[in-house]
Amino acid sequence: MNLILDLDTGIDDALAISYAASQDDANLLGITTAFGNVRVETATRNSLAMLELLGLTDVPVAQGADRPWGAEEKYVPSETLLQVHGRNGIGEVVLPEPQRMPETTNAVDFLIAKAREYGKDLTLVTAGPMTNLADAFKKDPEAISSIGKIVSMAGAVTVPGNVTRYAEANIINDAAAAKYVFESGLDITVVGLDVTLRTLLSGDDINAWKQPNSAIGNALAQMSDYYYANETDPDGNSVGGALHDPLAADIALHPETITYQVPMNLTLEVGSESNGRTIGNLNRLTDETTTAIVCTNVEAADFSRRFAAAILKLANRDQA
Amino acid sequence: MNLILDLDTGIDDALAISYAASQDDANLLGITTAFGNVRVETATRNSLAMLELLGLTDVPVAQGADRPWGAEEKYVPSETLLQVHGRNGIGEVVLPEPQRMPETTNAVDFLIAKAREYGKDLTLVTAGPMTNLADAFKKDPEAISSIGKIVSMAGAVTVPGNVTRYAEANIINDAAAAKYVFESGLDITVVGLDVTLRTLLSGDDINAWKQPNSAIGNALAQMSDYYYANETDPDGNSVGGALHDPLAADIALHPETITYQVPMNLTLEVGSESNGRTIGNLNRLTDETTTAIVCTNVEAADFSRRFAAAILKLANRDQA
Repeated sequence: MNLILDLDTGIDDALAISYAASQDDANLLGITTAFGNVRVETATRNSLAMLELLGLTDVPVAQGADRPWGAEEKYVPSETLLQVHGRNGIGEVVLPEPQRMPETTNAVDFLIAKAREYGKDLTLVTAGPMTNLADAFKKDPEAISSIGKIVSMAGAVTVPGNVTRYAEANIINDAAAAKYVFESGLDITVVGLDVTLRTLLSGDDINAWKQPNSAIGNALAQMSDYYYANETDPDGNSVGGALHDPLAADIALHPETITYQVPMNLTLEVGSESNGRTIGNLNRLTDETTTAIVCTNVEAADFSRRFAAAILKLANRDQA
Repeated sequence: MNLILDLDTGIDDALAISYAASQDDANLLGITTAFGNVRVETATRNSLAMLELLGLTDVPVAQGADRPWGAEEKYVPSETLLQVHGRNGIGEVVLPEPQRMPETTNAVDFLIAKAREYGKDLTLVTAGPMTNLADAFKKDPEAISSIGKIVSMAGAVTVPGNVTRYAEANIINDAAAAKYVFESGLDITVVGLDVTLRTLLSGDDINAWKQPNSAIGNALAQMSDYYYANETDPDGNSVGGALHDPLAADIALHPETITYQVPMNLTLEVGSESNGRTIGNLNRLTDETTTAIVCTNVEAADFSRRFAAAILKLANRDQA
């Protein structure tokens, strides 16, 4: 499967890159980056560093949006985000400075070019704000509509948000772009907190990655220890080790992971206290066609096991 | 199927009674009443009047809650509700004063007695606030847990509410009781705005009921004309002729009407601006057992056709 990952590369994005790298049936065509968990420059740097760590030095990285739609200033991550992902976005893990540069093409033109080249044979996974996707669709709707499948880690339809009671982080980072995408007519498989919060990585899983004492295993284990020590809900309670971005990558590759889904037309509430709430679009409730597939349950334990085993395999291979 | 309807008998409750009366496989054991669309005394009066109109003078009516949990004052419907359902709760349609009285047993004891008598062979449809059900469960959890199936017109999980952006009317009329029920462990099939707003009764359907010039057909047509002329969303837009309560009755009798459903553990947000929001319970997100089946899509057009035809048949039979 020809895959592009659109990321705001913090820790779970790094885990998603690693998971994609571990899957024999994934042909990673590139990574596009955006602001979100970190500044866009940091997302680009972390993506390049992760690809080098994984030995994927032929996979291009194209840098994209540095701010949400309508913002005058470049985006700066909140203090909370700097705590969740670390000041360098990867849990203060020190990776070698990447030897490669990002593409001279920006993320939007990269997405459009790959969409034109691969069309229905392309799968796009977005696990950051929807800004790059929205910009690309706005610039070339025909090309972007031709993409075979788009899977987005985004939103919270049947559960509360993780930034506010209403909003999930990727959505609220650019609610206007996300609303535009959901109302654009693009078919999107929505992997929200509804399902990602069900996927729990355990401390034992992480510890096993350390056993081979390999660069990959140690780096991913150290990032994960950092990430899961810090992640809490708005009330400050631990929500466990949710594999947000890796689950979106998995569902792109293995849709059979989904056990319950709801075809619906989504929209966003914007500008009120419920800013960023992902909810059914009443204006299109009785439309015969629906554009969003909202995942509402998954084989969570099975995925968590497969994920932990896939990373362990990478760690072992790196050592050997 | 042995059926009890728990209603706050306004117009769509009256339609639900009529629909249940039209179904050969429904054995209506009784109606329990509560405040909600109207005062409880009005709900009782309207239930008795509807049963007499339908010739069901052997079906008992047991009166229940006159106020939500914790309220010191008896409930008084809002001016909006008096507009939606009319000051008499049935669109100013004048029905003969009922000849029968409600049971001397109250709704809670009636529900418990029928649950003890019929157990798994009893289906309960609630289409008002969940106060009677919550009170009955609190008083005799064993009896109420033995009920074979509970179907509730309640909530809005994947769409906005109809009283506020968050809350559906039956839920917000007693959010504390609803939260108690959803967290009680009782299995509930949730028929919320997610699906009821998809069921549209047309003006042509209503006009057809007038053709036989029968008491039943004329009364239901007049109520429906009143109801659908007034129903709007919080922004004042018409939402069409949604068959809220009748759909819950139909799903109790014909679960195959459901096309998409999500098994989940529900809770309510209470006391904030999102008071009454029906949402997944994060504390029970990864539980293996789930107690709510949230209906997210139905054979809406098919149901609307069957419903209109069933009422037309009643109207024709009444004339003959």
